[in-house]
Amino acid sequence: MLGWDNATMLPENSGEARGAQLAALAEVCHDIITQPKLGDLIAKAESEHGVLDDWQQANLREMKRAWQHETAVPADLVSAISHACHESELFWRKARTENNFKEFLPYQEKVLALIRESATAKGEAMKLSPYDALLDQFEPGATSAMIDGIFDDLANFLPGFISDVMGKQAQEPAPLEITGFFPSGAQKSLGKTMMEKLGFDFTRGRLDESTHPFCGGVPGDIRLTTRYDEKDFLSGFFGVMHETGHALYEMGLPAKWMNQPVGEARGMGIHESQSLLVEMQITMNLDFLTYAAPLMRSAFDVDGPEWSPENIYTHVTRVKPSFIRVDADEATYPAHIILRYRLEKLMIAGKLEVKDLPEAWSQQMQQLLGIKPDTDANGCMQDIHWPDGAFGYFPTYTLGAMTAAQLVASIRKDIPNLGSFLRKGEFHPLFEWLGKKIHSQASRFSSPDLLKHATGQTLNSALYKEHLKSRYLQ
Amino acid sequence: MLGWDNATMLPENSGEARGAQLAALAEVCHDIITQPKLGDLIAKAESEHGVLDDWQQANLREMKRAWQHETAVPADLVSAISHACHESELFWRKARTENNFKEFLPYQEKVLALIRESATAKGEAMKLSPYDALLDQFEPGATSAMIDGIFDDLANFLPGFISDVMGKQAQEPAPLEITGFFPSGAQKSLGKTMMEKLGFDFTRGRLDESTHPFCGGVPGDIRLTTRYDEKDFLSGFFGVMHETGHALYEMGLPAKWMNQPVGEARGMGIHESQSLLVEMQITMNLDFLTYAAPLMRSAFDVDGPEWSPENIYTHVTRVKPSFIRVDADEATYPAHIILRYRLEKLMIAGKLEVKDLPEAWSQQMQQLLGIKPDTDANGCMQDIHWPDGAFGYFPTYTLGAMTAAQLVASIRKDIPNLGSFLRKGEFHPLFEWLGKKIHSQASRFSSPDLLKHATGQTLNSALYKEHLKSRYLQ
Repeated sequence: MLGWDNATMLPENSGEARGAQLAALAEVCHDIITQPKLGDLIAKAESEHGVLDDWQQANLREMKRAWQHETAVPADLVSAISHACHESELFWRKARTENNFKEFLPYQEKVLALIRESATAKGEAMKLSPYDALLDQFEPGATSAMIDGIFDDLANFLPGFISDVMGKQAQEPAPLEITGFFPSGAQKSLGKTMMEKLGFDFTRGRLDESTHPFCGGVPGDIRLTTRYDEKDFLSGFFGVMHETGHALYEMGLPAKWMNQPVGEARGMGIHESQSLLVEMQITMNLDFLTYAAPLMRSAFDVDGPEWSPENIYTHVTRVKPSFIRVDADEATYPAHIILRYRLEKLMIAGKLEVKDLPEAWSQQMQQLLGIKPDTDANGCMQDIHWPDGAFGYFPTYTLGAMTAAQLVASIRKDIPNLGSFLRKGEFHPLFEWLGKKIHSQASRFSSPDLLKHATGQTLNSALYKEHLKSRYLQ
Repeated sequence: MLGWDNATMLPENSGEARGAQLAALAEVCHDIITQPKLGDLIAKAESEHGVLDDWQQANLREMKRAWQHETAVPADLVSAISHACHESELFWRKARTENNFKEFLPYQEKVLALIRESATAKGEAMKLSPYDALLDQFEPGATSAMIDGIFDDLANFLPGFISDVMGKQAQEPAPLEITGFFPSGAQKSLGKTMMEKLGFDFTRGRLDESTHPFCGGVPGDIRLTTRYDEKDFLSGFFGVMHETGHALYEMGLPAKWMNQPVGEARGMGIHESQSLLVEMQITMNLDFLTYAAPLMRSAFDVDGPEWSPENIYTHVTRVKPSFIRVDADEATYPAHIILRYRLEKLMIAGKLEVKDLPEAWSQQMQQLLGIKPDTDANGCMQDIHWPDGAFGYFPTYTLGAMTAAQLVASIRKDIPNLGSFLRKGEFHPLFEWLGKKIHSQASRFSSPDLLKHATGQTLNSALYKEHLKSRYLQ
């Protein structure tokens, strides 16, 4: 709640007071979870495993996982990381603006050294490789062995695919421009209408504005944010749809296990699968747009051929390689992720040093996207993740996209007339399926097992490639 | 922050999630402050008292006070009170609507019995009478011996005074009505302008809306709320002025002692003195209104004789006894408080039982205000305080009003041309004085000592009576 407030409501000079509150809460939480007796209690519970039902066993497993992450790293290292990341993030903001990688280098080196140390400690405690221990923080059960295979397959596929798509799109007429003035009030009103249609419960959640959109709050009180560009309606619209995917996951978590570790959403990859499923699979979709385009026209009192479902769809499915991940289209986005995954894995393993990052970045980008960043600011310094110490997070974006495609492939089998539901704006069958297979399962299974229970198989890159080919080449 | 959010932002069905958060925080705070080692640490610090400077000594005293209040009452009694008050408040809402005192009686009796028990335990631990121990929660250092004298003096003065004022006002022309439509946006804008003029720093605070206005947040991030009646501009305006007085106190607390017990605002009486000083003494004042009336006219694009400073002033200083405390004018308000103070003191002492409350209420009201409540709903059931277990709180309202009058008497000596500053909208000299004498002193002294340091004498009802006579009879 304090994080949400920080992004939406906090007066500009109240950051210090908020920082003190967050630090105090973090300290209290750390003290609670690192109490000496907790290890004994967990061990005792494990020895009585047989009397627990499967949810209780999963809850114990998640308790142990949280406890391991919190206790594996000595308190002074945790504190050193926190300070180094804070400092590094400050210098990163400045250095990125000035495109000065050299100035930033020592800060990133310090962060990396500390994260390596932490990853090694976590790995030893959890019997995982250092990088897999970092992964486990964000995507429990995922391993680099599994991701390597999937991402390598995708890396082989993408360059040719992107080139084919661009060739095809070059032959087709460009979409009509969708310009105008779209008042944020009308955007918000349409966004809220669509959120409600999708199942968002405004008696247990809100929609507000922040610079960087996110879905926060707690189950029972979901706080979703967006930003409005009054010249570009579509980016805000799909942003709200994306966050609504996150929100509906949180809203669908089992009430029975609320505030218990097993009752929390499974990792970031599954979370991202829910947002991308709504954004990329369901709403960035001609069936859905057939339903939504008239609502858009009426919301802004506009009309014309540019507002046809087909034109909007053509608009949002244009593909072109670019430097910046957050601006990338659906087809080129995974290349940005594979690049980062490969480089951070090498960095954690000690096989790539920060000083060699610009060159390695440039090489990977040319290999995967056929372009070379014009500056470090538009290259290896564009993201906040590494300056902030968040190694092991990047792969979850593409794991999420692939998981979404795999889920939708199963959903289309179970709900053969999904398209006609979407054209009528009926989302109930879709979210009933997701509620049953994903939302209500919370952290009962590891991410791979959750997906296997839901679709009958673990993550399969073929289904994701199918989705991309069918959308962009047919 | 969660309390502010609860009143301003919380979705209607998110109360359960919020309740769980607040309960968890309360439990953590309770666990921290009742750690067995704390008593030893306090005793050890007291034995080394000599090495502490006066602020540190005061900080230790406040730590001990907080610790005593938290540890004096056994955990099961704290929990029983919390449950009984929650239940009683629920039934009170229903019973008040239905004017059914009999149905409510057993709930209030249960609350009273538990509060008596708690007051006795606190009194024993702090060597105070049970009622004084309750007082100490809200107004540290105040005692019923001191309040008795002041309130009795006031009780002797008020009936004749009120009758004189009403006689005088009956002879004068009634104020012109101030009617119209006052859009909440324009009210908010004017309120913010005035808040800034008074010194509210919007980079460290906000103004929002809630059903019951309050000043919340933390030093460094003050969250003030109000409500707007679009037919009655004045009530909202003075409401904002009132809360701004609270806010400027919080904003003026010493940064050096932030988050330390001694760095917190002194009790509720001093807090109320700051809000009433701004509302009743400074802004409900002809000098101030001479400055503010043109701003009001321009804010709502209105004009006419009803918008003269004199008419507005006459409007807000009309006196008439009525049943409901929160609607009472400045002159009759203290009678409502004296009544409640006398009755709650008897109840805690076991000399008045809840079943006899309606009769006692009626007698006191006739004696003090010359009127008799038409119903219990408009009598002893009108306030949330007793159903909620808040005994010992009521006197702080009138102690605040008296303190405000006493402070302003000193301020007028130190700043002889205060009136001309107010007519020009210059508030700097006033708040410099308050900052130095009150705000920056935080909890360094007890309430009586703070007032003595600021004005040279402890609470003196003569100055308050002077204020009332000069405003209403001259």
